[in-house]
Amino acid sequence: MPPNSSSDSLFTDLYQLTMAQSYYQSGQTERATFSLFFRNFPTKRAYYVFCGLESAVEYLENLEFFEEDIDSLDSLGIFDAEFLGYLGKLRFTGDVRAMREGEVFFENEPVMEVSGPIIECQLVETFLLNRVNLESMLATKAARVVDAAAGRSVVDFATRRTHGLDAGMKQARSSYIAGFDGTSNVAAATEFGIPAVGTMSHSFISSFGDEREAFRAYAKSFPDSSTLLVDTYDTLGGVANAIATAKDMEAGGHRLRAIRLDSGDLESLARSSRAMLDESGLDYVQILASGGLDEYPISDLLKSEAPIDGFGVGTRVGASADAPYTDFVYKLVEYDGKPIMKLSEDKVNLPGAKQVSRHIGFDGTMRLDMIHRADEYASGRGGEPLLLPMMENGERTRALPSLDEIRTFHSRRAAMLPSGLQGPEPEGRYRVRVSDHLAELREETMERIRASGSG
Amino acid sequence: MPPNSSSDSLFTDLYQLTMAQSYYQSGQTERATFSLFFRNFPTKRAYYVFCGLESAVEYLENLEFFEEDIDSLDSLGIFDAEFLGYLGKLRFTGDVRAMREGEVFFENEPVMEVSGPIIECQLVETFLLNRVNLESMLATKAARVVDAAAGRSVVDFATRRTHGLDAGMKQARSSYIAGFDGTSNVAAATEFGIPAVGTMSHSFISSFGDEREAFRAYAKSFPDSSTLLVDTYDTLGGVANAIATAKDMEAGGHRLRAIRLDSGDLESLARSSRAMLDESGLDYVQILASGGLDEYPISDLLKSEAPIDGFGVGTRVGASADAPYTDFVYKLVEYDGKPIMKLSEDKVNLPGAKQVSRHIGFDGTMRLDMIHRADEYASGRGGEPLLLPMMENGERTRALPSLDEIRTFHSRRAAMLPSGLQGPEPEGRYRVRVSDHLAELREETMERIRASGSG
Repeated sequence: MPPNSSSDSLFTDLYQLTMAQSYYQSGQTERATFSLFFRNFPTKRAYYVFCGLESAVEYLENLEFFEEDIDSLDSLGIFDAEFLGYLGKLRFTGDVRAMREGEVFFENEPVMEVSGPIIECQLVETFLLNRVNLESMLATKAARVVDAAAGRSVVDFATRRTHGLDAGMKQARSSYIAGFDGTSNVAAATEFGIPAVGTMSHSFISSFGDEREAFRAYAKSFPDSSTLLVDTYDTLGGVANAIATAKDMEAGGHRLRAIRLDSGDLESLARSSRAMLDESGLDYVQILASGGLDEYPISDLLKSEAPIDGFGVGTRVGASADAPYTDFVYKLVEYDGKPIMKLSEDKVNLPGAKQVSRHIGFDGTMRLDMIHRADEYASGRGGEPLLLPMMENGERTRALPSLDEIRTFHSRRAAMLPSGLQGPEPEGRYRVRVSDHLAELREETMERIRASGSG
Repeated sequence: MPPNSSSDSLFTDLYQLTMAQSYYQSGQTERATFSLFFRNFPTKRAYYVFCGLESAVEYLENLEFFEEDIDSLDSLGIFDAEFLGYLGKLRFTGDVRAMREGEVFFENEPVMEVSGPIIECQLVETFLLNRVNLESMLATKAARVVDAAAGRSVVDFATRRTHGLDAGMKQARSSYIAGFDGTSNVAAATEFGIPAVGTMSHSFISSFGDEREAFRAYAKSFPDSSTLLVDTYDTLGGVANAIATAKDMEAGGHRLRAIRLDSGDLESLARSSRAMLDESGLDYVQILASGGLDEYPISDLLKSEAPIDGFGVGTRVGASADAPYTDFVYKLVEYDGKPIMKLSEDKVNLPGAKQVSRHIGFDGTMRLDMIHRADEYASGRGGEPLLLPMMENGERTRALPSLDEIRTFHSRRAAMLPSGLQGPEPEGRYRVRVSDHLAELREETMERIRASGSG
């Protein structure tokens, strides 16, 4: 499993290390704060779900360049021996404030802020961005699917089509946080304690040649947990074979759990299948649909009231196909006590360490988020603070929640989203404001940078 | 690094294991052949590049369920003790025929065929698909970028935006195979022996406050390998500061390597920068462009003759943003000596073990690929056979090539592609034919399935 290095410390961009050497050699080693945020969401995304905190904290706690890592760096021929000696002793000694995993957030809100000696905070950029980009993207896509499924069961079948093994594992975890009911990924199911789910493939049925015989063999092996795939030959013929199998199972005191439709016009096939099952007294047999699904077709199927009890989603969800990357950035906002920002006409840049407060209406719906200066908020301004201290001086300051706790937290937050932000094609935008104090700081910082001539 | 299991064997879909138990219990354990192929390419993709063979072979060689894996499976409560005992002793004992890594291939061509006891061949589907899907997708996107860059240098800056760590490592490897010149990913560079490349970030410059001072510090640390990022404040002001730095470097007997443009109108900024550099006698300083690039904007920049010497590509390339998943499938094509196919009106299904032969014109350009029955081809039919024996009875039958050998092979193959298939918006399709013998087998198989009543 890559990377083969015994530590994750080399999973970084080369420039993090060359800049570190230059910071080190020029004595540019004061305390800094970096802010991790997402400026512009892709179209059709009115909110994102924050995930990746656990990965980030575990990485920071264990950050260390092993001897073989230092040897690898030395072999590149651009690093100084003294600097490599320093790197061999480096650990992360800084602070992390972050939103809780499973939180919903909006454009320009910092989801994580990292403070400490600038070299440590700079070095970790690549890894932290990779984690938060991946896990938040997957959780967000999955949350949209859960929303579209409107209470029907959804399970993760993406393992073969995620971008690699790491993504396959995180897809199972992130989609479970978002509300999926299970995953087909056995490694993820056993590692994270997520329900493992599965049916059968067309190959299984083809190998028997006879569909009925294949169903019989499978039902014999799994008398209480069989889902039969009915579209290998003719779908409704397959349903008839599944019904015959279910009747045999009943005779033995067992029940067929479900049939799975994996191709064709899912709406009309679901209706016909439901009718056939009900006419045979098999109203307890569920109908599972799969095949190229994500929030858009699921929403359409449910609008047309297709009698589908659950969805298996794979390719398009595991690749977040309609928004296949996330543009989180990690920007220096303070160095040696001085607020920093990049001057740019078209980009929102907020200097200094920050806090985000969330204001909830009487009906329990989110109304407004406010981005503050961190020190301003500390003096008390109402609303719920979203950035919580997660690490101080390189150590965890709070126990991370269990996966089920994160899932419950996310579900609570998703329920508080204004309805216009939900659905595959959300209308409107959530209101995020910058506090007066932060706006003043931005003006002052802009003036200072312009006056210094660097702007 | 996930999966945490000591083996990769649990990185599979649950149904592979439930089907395995059912195959086992019903004595359905004869020899099978599965074919891995890609039916319909996304729009704008006229060819794909096959990658993932090395990962696949290493996985198959080491396939084993460790005691802790068996315990994990046992804890799911659906597997029979006898079957788990069998699984603990299972190894891959089959054969693999595949294209070479770096090969270009077309729709419906098998890139890999796996033969052996059906349980072994079925179990490995998920992992093999995940590897080949990921690595071929990344190599293909990168090959298109290399093609668009028309000889300019291209380097991989995608590490922070790939879907996870595994994808970040494979992005570096696959893009190097496709012809990239280096990667910013230090773990990948040191593991695979790819040149490590990097510049500096906006944060580095912001921390100094003064751009000139930041350039000076960096140039002092890297007197012979500096690339200065010039767009933190005002881009052409940044170029002026880079020129002053380059002059200081010259005084010390060193040379600035390049400047990097990362935002704005890259074409006009490149022209202005080139003029300023040349007027200052710095014609040796290269211009590197980055920021949201992939084959489409690169092609446009070069059409307008922007004086750019190299490109750094990240987000859109590392996520294969315009085609973010690949639809390889792994289908049973033969069981117990009998050819198998799925009856479907809209899908090409080719039964039995196959071979692909490639026919080259006198000018060295690829003309036609032909898909044959494997046994038919063995009797000799001209053209170059693309599927080579890689494993027999679970053991490698040939040494896998080095990364540089794969890169050279790919470059040779890419040069043989008909010109209409190249470029961001290819015209036309490559000709792939089914041999008469294979077409006959398809007819016979279809007849047999219909006659048996399963169809």
